[in-house]
Order: sequence, then structure tokens, then C-alpha cells
Amino acid sequence: MIHTYSLVHDDLPALDNDDLRRGRKTTHIVFGEAFAILTGDALLTEAFAWLSSPGGNLRAIQEVANAIDSKGMIGGQVADLEASVGQTFLSGRPDKNLQPTRQDLQFIHENKTGKLLTASVLLGGILAGANEEQIDALRRYGHATGLAFQIVDDLLDIEADAATLGKTAGKDIAQGKLTYPALLGADAARAEAQRLLEVAINNADMITGPNYLADIARYICARRN
Amino acid sequence: MIHTYSLVHDDLPALDNDDLRRGRKTTHIVFGEAFAILTGDALLTEAFAWLSSPGGNLRAIQEVANAIDSKGMIGGQVADLEASVGQTFLSGRPDKNLQPTRQDLQFIHENKTGKLLTASVLLGGILAGANEEQIDALRRYGHATGLAFQIVDDLLDIEADAATLGKTAGKDIAQGKLTYPALLGADAARAEAQRLLEVAINNADMITGPNYLADIARYICARRN
Repeated sequence: MIHTYSLVHDDLPALDNDDLRRGRKTTHIVFGEAFAILTGDALLTEAFAWLSSPGGNLRAIQEVANAIDSKGMIGGQVADLEASVGQTFLSGRPDKNLQPTRQDLQFIHENKTGKLLTASVLLGGILAGANEEQIDALRRYGHATGLAFQIVDDLLDIEADAATLGKTAGKDIAQGKLTYPALLGADAARAEAQRLLEVAINNADMITGPNYLADIARYICARRN
Repeated sequence: MIHTYSLVHDDLPALDNDDLRRGRKTTHIVFGEAFAILTGDALLTEAFAWLSSPGGNLRAIQEVANAIDSKGMIGGQVADLEASVGQTFLSGRPDKNLQPTRQDLQFIHENKTGKLLTASVLLGGILAGANEEQIDALRRYGHATGLAFQIVDDLLDIEADAATLGKTAGKDIAQGKLTYPALLGADAARAEAQRLLEVAINNADMITGPNYLADIARYICARRN
């Protein structure tokens, strides 16, 4: 629900202005902007309604809320938006003439993508009664996997076609968007995704019992859409 | 935070398209639509981050989430939006040729305004350890006060000027919006607000100890903006 809310709002004309998502028309194209805004609002709220159902866990709700508030996903989205219009208020440098750095890019990805993915991994750990050592390993796994996911996403945007991707391809370059391939080159970006995949797998291996986290990290890096 | 989020999104061009709020320019006028959408998203999320802080109360979070989800505030907002464009999907009547009824109007107000106000009253009761009888009285108080608030709001829109109101006046009529004065006439709307005020006061009186709820209900009905 939270991921979908973020996509519905992100696709709006005032933000990414995208009319294709998961191979189908975006919400605002089908239902109009007003209902798309309210759909996102509803999905975000319903997520907290589910999390706070009887038997819910206060720490789990806190982890999710912190992951997506203005110090998390929204903060990353705002930084991304500022970078896309040539303003860099990131890293305490309120100077619109400065070019975004790799530090800025990492801030955007960690917050915009990484923290929600990490929260979703932590939820499983918290509700299964993981100890603090396991929680820390899950947090490092989520951080690495989230960054790797975004780098692969950036690479797919320049390499795949819309039919495979299920959304408009080549939009990042068209919008002059800050991406790993644009900043480092495609080869260095791919190498960084590989390094992060190894960090993710090492931390997944620290979790006892059968777990599919390493496989999920491998899938995220190998996916074609 | 939740009330402000709802106003920031409600003022957007795709929704009420309002450029004045609390006597100042609206968020999207000052910061642009993209940041206004994200500001609303952030405020909604921060509210749940606060509610789930250590020492938080799961039932309180559940009451708030239920009050503002698609069966609450968002549902009322969607119904209001449908009514404003001449579609009436309320009350199980999916017929766009039917005119909105008083039942529709009550559905809109109960959900769009009443439930959040009720939740804010319930929060105090839950956190103070109110018993179920007191919780029920608080719920009836919130329901009556919320409806009265909205009727007074509709009346002020046709009676006050923008300087007193702190927002654009006369917008409801200009947008052909469904309101109590439009449906019942101003006198009957005022009488209904008075009746609800008495229900609110009666229920406020059921709460033991010093309480200001009756005064708040009186203030809401007597306010000029």
C-alpha cells in the first residue's frame, strides 16, 4: 500500500508526470488528478489502519512511519525534486549553483528507496521476534539492497524498452535526472550494484534458519523490469 | 498535522483550487504543486510517527487511522468530489442523474469533517483512561460537534467576507457545491446546528470532572471564521 501510494503520487503531472506504470495507464490518467491524489492519501492511511489493527506492534508502526516521513522517503523525494530543478539543498549546501554530488545521490536513494525497503524487511524481523543483532543485520541488508535496487532501476531506464519495463523508458535522461549511470557511467554503476549485492548477501547469511533474503537481493540485481 | 495535511491537499488546483487559507497564500501557491503534494504526504506520515512514539497507544492509532481512511475522511472527500461534479455514487445509488439528498450531504459531513474531530476527542479519552460509557459519550459529542462545525462553515461561506474568514468567501456557491444552506435554506441550517449543539452539550455533561468540551462546542457554533 505504501509503495503504491508513493508511485501514484510520484506519477502525478506536478511530479514525474508519467502516464505509464506496470504496463498500464497511471491512476491520474484513468481517474483524473483529484482522485489520484486522494487514492494515494487513502493507501497511505489504510497502511497505518492495518498496522494498528488489534495485535499490532507499536515498534513496527514506528519503524514504518520513520522510514517514510520527511526524514525518510519524503525527504529523499524532496531532495530528488530539488536536484531535478537544479537546486541542491542537500548535505547542508544551500547553493543553487552547486552541482549534485555522489553524496547527494546516495542521500536521495537511501531515503527515497532504501528506507521503505529496509522497513519492510525489519517488519518481518520484529514480528518474528528477532534479537537486536539480527535486527541490525536486517537493517544493513535492507540498506544495501535498497541502494542496489535503485542503481539497477537507473540502469534499466537507459537500457530497456517500455514493453519490457512496463513504464516509460529513457525518462531520466529526458528529464535531466540525477542518476548513478549519469554520474558514474554505466560500468561503474553496475560494479557498485554488484558490491552492494555482496553486502546484502553477507548480512542475509547472518540470519539463522531458512531465509530467502539473499535470493531476493540476487533477483533485484538480475531483473529486467 | 492531519487536519493541515487535509487542507493542503484540499486546496490543490485539482481539488478545491483555493489560493487563500488562514489569511495567507496556500502551500501550492507559495511552493508549487509538487512540494504541496509532498508536504501533505509528510504531515500525514509525521502524525503516525508521533502517535507510534515509545509509550504510544495502539487503540489511539487505530481510532485515528479509521477516522481518516477511505471509510472515513477520504471517503467523505471522494463523495463530496463526486457530488460536486454531478455524480452521486453515495448511498448505493450509482446513478449520475440523481440529485444529491440530505442523506448524501450528511454522509459527506460525517466522514469528511466529523470523524477526524471525533478521533481527536477520543484520543484524549483513551489516553486519560476513560471507561467505555465515557468513550461512547465522547463519540456522540464528536459526531454532533463535527456536523455542527460543517454547517456553520457552510453558513459562514455565504455570510462572511474573505478578510473575516481568512479564506476565499462564496466559493461553495460559485462551485455549485452541495451545502446545508443550499439544500435546506439558511434558517433551517442554522436551526440544525443549534439542535446538534444541544446534543453535544448534553454528552459533554456526561464526562465527569472539569471539562471544556461544552465550551468548545458553543465556540464552534458562535465563531465568525
